[in-house]
Amino acid sequence: MVILGIDPGYAIIGYGAINANGFSHSPIGYGAVTTVAGIPFNRRLEIIFEEMNAIIAQYKPDAVSIEKLYFNSNQKTAIYVAQARGVILLSAQLAGVDVFEYTPLQVKSAVTGYGQATKTQVMRMTQRLLGLKEIPKPDDTADALAIAICHSHSRGSALQKMIINRGNKR
Amino acid sequence: MVILGIDPGYAIIGYGAINANGFSHSPIGYGAVTTVAGIPFNRRLEIIFEEMNAIIAQYKPDAVSIEKLYFNSNQKTAIYVAQARGVILLSAQLAGVDVFEYTPLQVKSAVTGYGQATKTQVMRMTQRLLGLKEIPKPDDTADALAIAICHSHSRGSALQKMIINRGNKR
Repeated sequence: MVILGIDPGYAIIGYGAINANGFSHSPIGYGAVTTVAGIPFNRRLEIIFEEMNAIIAQYKPDAVSIEKLYFNSNQKTAIYVAQARGVILLSAQLAGVDVFEYTPLQVKSAVTGYGQATKTQVMRMTQRLLGLKEIPKPDDTADALAIAICHSHSRGSALQKMIINRGNKR
Repeated sequence: MVILGIDPGYAIIGYGAINANGFSHSPIGYGAVTTVAGIPFNRRLEIIFEEMNAIIAQYKPDAVSIEKLYFNSNQKTAIYVAQARGVILLSAQLAGVDVFEYTPLQVKSAVTGYGQATKTQVMRMTQRLLGLKEIPKPDDTADALAIAICHSHSRGSALQKMIINRGNKR
């Protein structure tokens, strides 16, 4: 199955498509969508929407795996990221692709088997599992590939939670 | 000019279109988009997108006026609202409509002339300014009409801030 991992954001959105066959993975394509500062935020949302639509059309993923969003100290940035994430979810929904979300801890655990792994350890293991010569740049792209592997490793396990498609209670 | 006010959310999105001519206003149409709990969140985003596209196509606003988002104690809800708001902004952007955002304090001040006005006072003044027999229901719809009036009263004043279309610094 093809899994498209996404590291959400509004300035840089990392993405990585992998082919997952049991515990064997191979990269299909990866990169980052970048929107430059200084242009209107709504225009940035439009670019993200168009690029995500194009990426999903290109890789035709069976599932999208995306990092769960938490609030850090910078709430203003978090609002922008959440708004962009909504547009990314919309793009997947319009294409009829199921979306799964994972916490950073779940990604670490699923990729390295160790929840306390450092960011570098996660990236190195991602590189190794995908047989890549180098760790992909920018970090957002490497993160997206790790998120894709997380979904692959979590399929059929208790870790798997199709949280987004369950909706919420309100 | 036609101003479309929007009170963002994901369960209920209030909207109200008004015709603004100087300090004279008349209602064109208003209501609320509702998405029910229990269906997948991504599907709710899709419904919001489709409904917003239809509302903008119907009223052809010259401007969209929307409430600025802040974080309250319930961060989980705030993330869902922000994601839905991103989809609403995308809809306006795809239609080529400029978006203006205002804080709740700015809305209160612009509608009643008094920043400490109660929610009921804001609703009553909104009703009066638009010559409505009753305060529109649900509250989200009344709020959306107030947000539309706020933009009308703020045009050309120091209050006006096309914040969203200025983008941000990152």
